Amino acid sequence: MYSDNIRAVGQNPHISVDCVIFGFQEGDLKVLLIERSYDSLNDPSLLGKDLILPGDLVFDNEDLDASAKRILKELTNLENIFLEQFHAFGDPNRVRKSTDKNWLESIRSEPQARVITIAYYSLVKIDDYKPSASSFARNAYWHSLAQMPELGFDHNDIVNYALKALKKKIQTHPIGFELLPKKFTLSQLQKLYETIIGHALDKRNFRRQIIKKGILKPLLEKQKHVPHKRAQLFEFDKEKYELMNKEDYEILS
Amino acid sequence: MYSDNIRAVGQNPHISVDCVIFGFQEGDLKVLLIERSYDSLNDPSLLGKDLILPGDLVFDNEDLDASAKRILKELTNLENIFLEQFHAFGDPNRVRKSTDKNWLESIRSEPQARVITIAYYSLVKIDDYKPSASSFARNAYWHSLAQMPELGFDHNDIVNYALKALKKKIQTHPIGFELLPKKFTLSQLQKLYETIIGHALDKRNFRRQIIKKGILKPLLEKQKHVPHKRAQLFEFDKEKYELMNKEDYEILS
Repeated sequence: MYSDNIRAVGQNPHISVDCVIFGFQEGDLKVLLIERSYDSLNDPSLLGKDLILPGDLVFDNEDLDASAKRILKELTNLENIFLEQFHAFGDPNRVRKSTDKNWLESIRSEPQARVITIAYYSLVKIDDYKPSASSFARNAYWHSLAQMPELGFDHNDIVNYALKALKKKIQTHPIGFELLPKKFTLSQLQKLYETIIGHALDKRNFRRQIIKKGILKPLLEKQKHVPHKRAQLFEFDKEKYELMNKEDYEILS
Repeated sequence: MYSDNIRAVGQNPHISVDCVIFGFQEGDLKVLLIERSYDSLNDPSLLGKDLILPGDLVFDNEDLDASAKRILKELTNLENIFLEQFHAFGDPNRVRKSTDKNWLESIRSEPQARVITIAYYSLVKIDDYKPSASSFARNAYWHSLAQMPELGFDHNDIVNYALKALKKKIQTHPIGFELLPKKFTLSQLQKLYETIIGHALDKRNFRRQIIKKGILKPLLEKQKHVPHKRAQLFEFDKEKYELMNKEDYEILS
């Protein structure tokens, strides 16, 4: 029984998960990163520079989705987040850079093993989620996507791919509920779409299309604390929003 | 050097790929399946019944995409097919059914290992691809999606998920080029969409929407070999079709 237990909690040296958590704050799309700790190396030149996505090996008896949740919580203390799997990354050399190898040797029992990572992403309101580092993360914070540093492993590729997945998603599904404040202006919503798509959108066209979707409820309030031209505030019609986010929603139906 | 070579061609016992190849023929969506061979078991009761998707373990030095191509070719002799990764399946018990365990014991060096599979899908014209079985497949053929039998492992789940991915894809990307004959009628195209979506579409609405996309070129010919009411033939405008299939095509632009 005892050996069974040991086995049950063992990490699988070949399979990891990584999480790309997107947050939106003041017109800026951000990604949650962690700083790796180098307990056994103690290389001060890497302090504050050695950033990766939150991720780790899965347990051998653990479902992938459950693993992503557990690992995100262990490293950043974020929980109750809906994580969506978007791609598996399996370049045989993805863990072979020398910095990464050194770190793996300090932390893993089989540092030479080829590791395939299953990547997840999520969208959250930054103000609702305060990360705090634990386990092998010595720091966890939001980093602007526009100024992404060089990350460990193939994590820059993973972030770029997650952004692509997000771009695809907004073609068919409304987003914003997870990223914007409860009450928002159409300009804020447009800014969010523009940030994800990566270029400016025509204001009139955007408004017409987004209103046609029927997911916005105009409120009787206007924006506060702005010097002039207080804009109309909206909120999402939760029921219609969720209906449109159902997997089988069909444009052609 | 010799031991390096051995290592280079070794299979990774934890990571596999599986391929869901969709074909369309006479209004019917089909999936390519293989029959497992039971050389070491020789259980005649399983003859013709023991079906799975084409799939196998990846080599430890092999990229995932390359692996999917190699394995599809090894088992079914299909090649030059664009395979798209759509999901990783990692239930810890996905290889634990007794029939599957027996078969794994007959073929794998570590039959007890947990295996995560990275699944790929593709769309092909059935008439262009004649599968022929080799390696551990003793048969390879097209099977109607509407009458899918119980498959080995979690392969029914994988097929269902691939169909979902296909449904998502047709919301934003045109399909049909890979599945229909070069010249086709609008009824054939509608039938294809209906088969994938799983329900009937309004004829007028479908035609208006599909023509609006600007990807169809009407031909000066009409359908041949039909008793009456010969319908207008179309072909895809390849340039526009490919433009719309680019990853970054944006509905909101």
